[in-house]
Amino acid sequence: MPQKVRIALDAMGGDHGPSVVVPGAEISLTRHPDSEFILYGDRAKIDPLLAAHPRLQASAKLVHTDVAVRMEDKPSQALRNGRWKSSMWLAIDAVKKGEADVAISAGNTGALMAMAKFNLRTMAGISRPAIAALWPTTRGESIVLDLGASIGADADHLVDLAVMGSAMARVLFDLDRPTVGLLNVGVEEVKGLEPVREAGKILREGQFAHLDYFGFVEGDDIGKGTVDVVVTEGFSGNIALKAAEGTARQFADYLKAAMMRTWRSRLGYLLARPAFHMLREKLDPRKSNGGVFVGLNGVVIKSHGGTDPEGYAAAIDMGYDMVRYGLLGKISETLHRHADATAQSKALGGAAS
Amino acid sequence: MPQKVRIALDAMGGDHGPSVVVPGAEISLTRHPDSEFILYGDRAKIDPLLAAHPRLQASAKLVHTDVAVRMEDKPSQALRNGRWKSSMWLAIDAVKKGEADVAISAGNTGALMAMAKFNLRTMAGISRPAIAALWPTTRGESIVLDLGASIGADADHLVDLAVMGSAMARVLFDLDRPTVGLLNVGVEEVKGLEPVREAGKILREGQFAHLDYFGFVEGDDIGKGTVDVVVTEGFSGNIALKAAEGTARQFADYLKAAMMRTWRSRLGYLLARPAFHMLREKLDPRKSNGGVFVGLNGVVIKSHGGTDPEGYAAAIDMGYDMVRYGLLGKISETLHRHADATAQSKALGGAAS
Repeated sequence: MPQKVRIALDAMGGDHGPSVVVPGAEISLTRHPDSEFILYGDRAKIDPLLAAHPRLQASAKLVHTDVAVRMEDKPSQALRNGRWKSSMWLAIDAVKKGEADVAISAGNTGALMAMAKFNLRTMAGISRPAIAALWPTTRGESIVLDLGASIGADADHLVDLAVMGSAMARVLFDLDRPTVGLLNVGVEEVKGLEPVREAGKILREGQFAHLDYFGFVEGDDIGKGTVDVVVTEGFSGNIALKAAEGTARQFADYLKAAMMRTWRSRLGYLLARPAFHMLREKLDPRKSNGGVFVGLNGVVIKSHGGTDPEGYAAAIDMGYDMVRYGLLGKISETLHRHADATAQSKALGGAAS
Repeated sequence: MPQKVRIALDAMGGDHGPSVVVPGAEISLTRHPDSEFILYGDRAKIDPLLAAHPRLQASAKLVHTDVAVRMEDKPSQALRNGRWKSSMWLAIDAVKKGEADVAISAGNTGALMAMAKFNLRTMAGISRPAIAALWPTTRGESIVLDLGASIGADADHLVDLAVMGSAMARVLFDLDRPTVGLLNVGVEEVKGLEPVREAGKILREGQFAHLDYFGFVEGDDIGKGTVDVVVTEGFSGNIALKAAEGTARQFADYLKAAMMRTWRSRLGYLLARPAFHMLREKLDPRKSNGGVFVGLNGVVIKSHGGTDPEGYAAAIDMGYDMVRYGLLGKISETLHRHADATAQSKALGGAAS
């Protein structure tokens, strides 16, 4: 049996803190009994919850701290007040010190990214980290990144995103060469930003053993599942994600209102209830909860702040998979092969000229 | 009775050409009997259709041309082969020459924008045109621009977009001071691109009599209808639009599949049919068909290429409204007031220092 996956939890993060984190961890533990947990946070709040979840208690260690990063803290405030001592920092620090394999927090994204960057630093060969997440598609699921860790991207960063996203797709979808598309706009000749075109050239001509470059994709290709990995810089990635989330919510609201309007439609709704239930299951945002911070020397997962135990468990599951199936190793492997190939082709080019 | 609205139609544009354009114009004419049309295209194809629509025939003139821009033509190809003579060019040229008030085409967007820019030129005070469209929201409808006319934007261009979008909102929503939001990402302190922040400052501090600056909005605010006008540069605007369209289609597909799975859900579907019908009406993309090219010396409307007569009629209606309620005048008015105010405040600043 392989080593256990050691998971550090910021127990105070999120809108509901330990009352979601503890039962969430219990759910994930039943799915992955080879996990163990370190919870960081307020002992007085966590201990009674652990007592009510004896199974988790047996696999968990609690490290007390009074300090918690607040949802409204700015990254700089969080660093100033929470470094060395907040539950968020300590969870990340456990990964840094090798005491845990992955850190999970439902705390605020800006603070978590700032602390993760500050403490873990970026991997050799990667200049900026990114946030990647699963996007439900007609064909199943795809990975989209960057969802807002940084704004703007040059061609090299877009190539890094392709490498990191495809490593994540190998982990989650068990594919050897996931297809990768660069998000672009469809107007001919304008054809988007210069860095996007340049990244397309590098990906097309480069030697990427673990990535199958598809070409440009447009906004509606994400939901179609045209490619396994959709790459874009953080500004447009964030906007695409939120525009899609907003549309899904709008559609659900319209549907609900339409179903409640007449007695006939209400009766129809009652009869078709299992179908509506299936639809809700299918579109359940809790199931794809968990933004993965990629490009750092360690895995950090951001859960939605307002999620429930089921959603939090999904974020833990995501972290578990990233560790168990070796995300970091797969990123390095692709990066180094690419770097070697580039160096080799440069050397050959040099000899020829 | 005011003057008629004179509408130039590229009868050959779109996937279906005159077989959609002619009946579409007939539908719009019944709604706006004070319209008259000039159709540009192949007489042999259009004449029989006009004969079958005598009402339209009485209000329409036909100008024959053999040349049509193809859907797959690149903008440069379209300009090379279609300038001076294609149905698309001639429709735009009618606006240029003052023979029509607005041109409508379902032809390809890149070619249409290239020709419109080349022939009509941008308005005094505007450096680049944009594409604006209606976006259905929970509260009604909002205007979003730029949807892909140009890529990237400096602060001044974003301010121009705010001015043009709010003029369009005044026309369509009959508001005196529409609210305007700048699309941004929510991560604190990063807070998006420098030009977006700078544009926010200009809009907050500027003297805009016909625009109420709200602040930054995020991707999910579009569908919520948080503001009347959402401003962003063309790359992210195009991606947001297509991501939202993709999500709506995905949702509809899921719903359909769920409803057809069991006899119970089918029966429920039958009972709730009017509700589903209402939902479809509400989300009907044909009703918000019509991208408005703003910032040019003339109004040009882009219809979806694959639309049906009902959708094409909606694009004509949009053009009609823009002319009848004075879009161009409203843009100039806001621009000039702003320019005067800026000059004045600069003069005052100069005097004070």
